[in-house]
Amino acid sequence: MAMTLRLKKNEDRRLKQGHMWIYSNEVDTQVSPLKSFESGQVVTVESSNGKPLGIAYINPNTLICGRLLSRNPKVEFNQAFLKKRIQAALALRELNFDAPYYRLVFGESDGLPGLVIDRFGDVFVAQITTAGMEKMKAEITQTIENLFHPIALVYRNDTASRALEGLESYEEVAIGTLPESIVIEENGAKFQIPVESGQKTGWFYDHRMARKRMQSLVQGKRVLDVFSYLGGWAMEAAVAGAAEVVCVDASSAALDGVEINAELNGVADKLTTYEGNAFDVLKVLVGEAQKFDVVIVDPPAFVKRRKDLKSGSEGYRRINELAMRLVENDGVLISASCSHHMSRDDLLQQVQSAAKHIDRTIQMFDQGHQGPDHPVHPAIAETEYLKSFFFKVSKTW
Amino acid sequence: MAMTLRLKKNEDRRLKQGHMWIYSNEVDTQVSPLKSFESGQVVTVESSNGKPLGIAYINPNTLICGRLLSRNPKVEFNQAFLKKRIQAALALRELNFDAPYYRLVFGESDGLPGLVIDRFGDVFVAQITTAGMEKMKAEITQTIENLFHPIALVYRNDTASRALEGLESYEEVAIGTLPESIVIEENGAKFQIPVESGQKTGWFYDHRMARKRMQSLVQGKRVLDVFSYLGGWAMEAAVAGAAEVVCVDASSAALDGVEINAELNGVADKLTTYEGNAFDVLKVLVGEAQKFDVVIVDPPAFVKRRKDLKSGSEGYRRINELAMRLVENDGVLISASCSHHMSRDDLLQQVQSAAKHIDRTIQMFDQGHQGPDHPVHPAIAETEYLKSFFFKVSKTW
Repeated sequence: MAMTLRLKKNEDRRLKQGHMWIYSNEVDTQVSPLKSFESGQVVTVESSNGKPLGIAYINPNTLICGRLLSRNPKVEFNQAFLKKRIQAALALRELNFDAPYYRLVFGESDGLPGLVIDRFGDVFVAQITTAGMEKMKAEITQTIENLFHPIALVYRNDTASRALEGLESYEEVAIGTLPESIVIEENGAKFQIPVESGQKTGWFYDHRMARKRMQSLVQGKRVLDVFSYLGGWAMEAAVAGAAEVVCVDASSAALDGVEINAELNGVADKLTTYEGNAFDVLKVLVGEAQKFDVVIVDPPAFVKRRKDLKSGSEGYRRINELAMRLVENDGVLISASCSHHMSRDDLLQQVQSAAKHIDRTIQMFDQGHQGPDHPVHPAIAETEYLKSFFFKVSKTW
Repeated sequence: MAMTLRLKKNEDRRLKQGHMWIYSNEVDTQVSPLKSFESGQVVTVESSNGKPLGIAYINPNTLICGRLLSRNPKVEFNQAFLKKRIQAALALRELNFDAPYYRLVFGESDGLPGLVIDRFGDVFVAQITTAGMEKMKAEITQTIENLFHPIALVYRNDTASRALEGLESYEEVAIGTLPESIVIEENGAKFQIPVESGQKTGWFYDHRMARKRMQSLVQGKRVLDVFSYLGGWAMEAAVAGAAEVVCVDASSAALDGVEINAELNGVADKLTTYEGNAFDVLKVLVGEAQKFDVVIVDPPAFVKRRKDLKSGSEGYRRINELAMRLVENDGVLISASCSHHMSRDDLLQQVQSAAKHIDRTIQMFDQGHQGPDHPVHPAIAETEYLKSFFFKVSKTW
């Protein structure tokens, strides 16, 4: 019988609207002192009048002290639970994709808070970010084994947020051994994925649909991919018929990856890379009066916390202004942000401000979002973070 | 030499941010009395300190008394101007589409306030909504003739808003004669377009990209198209491999059109139609315990004016709740709104509220927008109106 976590009066509102988080100040600590729970313990959650709301796992030491697992108070958080949720997640991916390259589990949005799993064919890379999910690691491993019989399952349990949960940082190959080279396909291009040394799980599947859209615009064109990482946009442009692709990134390891991927796709002759801070490199290109038909600006999050909004917004404005200077008259700018705290309206305003500043008229002719393997939970705004805009850029009318 | 319209102090802000509208209370009527201008007259606009901001056309009798045409005060609003803007609009469409079926001109977003032109192959249908643009009708006709040599150009100058501009309501075939039947193609389906008797210009191109996305989800599925009009979603589902498509619309003329289009596409055997108020028909289907794999809800604008937001929101909630009851467990709901005043966040909240009310868990796995032939002007929020959400609908977890 699970212990009970009781909420204060009216503090069940967010859960009733569909959200899954419980903040520590919402708990009736007279009835259920947070200190009485272990980190990662599963409890029954009830409203102030004793009505059960479901089950959650608890971390008494974090601001978000509970994450709901099910609305059914009789459900158990066990291997059968994991299997059911992962199968449901798989069904959504199989509805949308033909090949086994996708984010298989996206945390709260798939009903599995604290767990992300990316699938690279027969290789799986998982990240656990909460104490409650960490307790289930053995069951997660077993479930992945049973459902997929993978060549390898790696835990990249090395995110900074784990420290707040009281979890150590480590990497572990939990099933099999990692093959020397892992190659995925996205929109007709191949990519070698550095699972152990790359950013996050090694690859960002989330822009897949926007990249596909981009491919229809690049035939015979000169394309600039700013903040390229492994060349996701550039390679997919090249295989879609771009005449020339230029990648800018601050990481030499990333640009080495771009070179490998260009070889893999037989487009090395189309590729140029520039290593350096994107702002600096773009200034040089502007100084050289270089022009591109299509420029993609897909930066890392400039607004990681809400309090960074002002400085981060300024960063988006500046990088988009530099990028726009490099777009041929009547060419295309694709501008993205992965910052949850930078809303789409905020980003649009910064790009428009940049356009006015350098006398350009821009028309937004399409919009992209995180792909279907990163579903949005409609009651949890925090699950939506990625947006991209497609602009035609012209001299002011 | 054009007359001058002077703005009050600081009332040039909106224009400087890129917007194109001037409200009557922003005009310095001491210097430039609105009554001194004719309806439709072209003027030079200047800020309070006499700095020229561009040219605009004026209507002294409307709340929006001026619409900017160019930031260059030396430009003339003439046939050469129209040609240049229409060619720019054409270039954006040709970047995005292979076939001549699209909205060619979308008002302010294409730098042509008060003008909409839809292209159905060699047949063009235009709508003029302002006095300033009406004055240029002969030049518009001549420009379309010169650029496209169309079989027919029809003015559907019958929108209700024309009365506010002091314009009469009429329909006119300005070039050629309308062929007996006009057939377009969209995403592999054919549609016969009732240019003279249909809604607006006869067809809604704006959901094209979202419909294409829908096609990847319907193979072998049972699909319900609510508020079907001529069957845009249903026909494109049928040609993409849906097993069965059901259309609901209140208009018998629209459903006659659906039948014609089903014949045109050779999918009449897959089609069922129900004539009636969508709320009523859906209640009957719920009563019959009917289920569909994919349900599309694409209503007319429930929120036409900001003051309708509350009642309109309730309409969206109710229709989405009914629709969701008809979705198979783990099936798909596509929910759209074309109301500018109903924001995407508002709509998402109503659908989530409906889901909670009937105990469903929904995951938003994709989002659609007005297509690239309806570009958004980043400084004119009013140019963005269409959104669609793709949900997986499951019993509450």
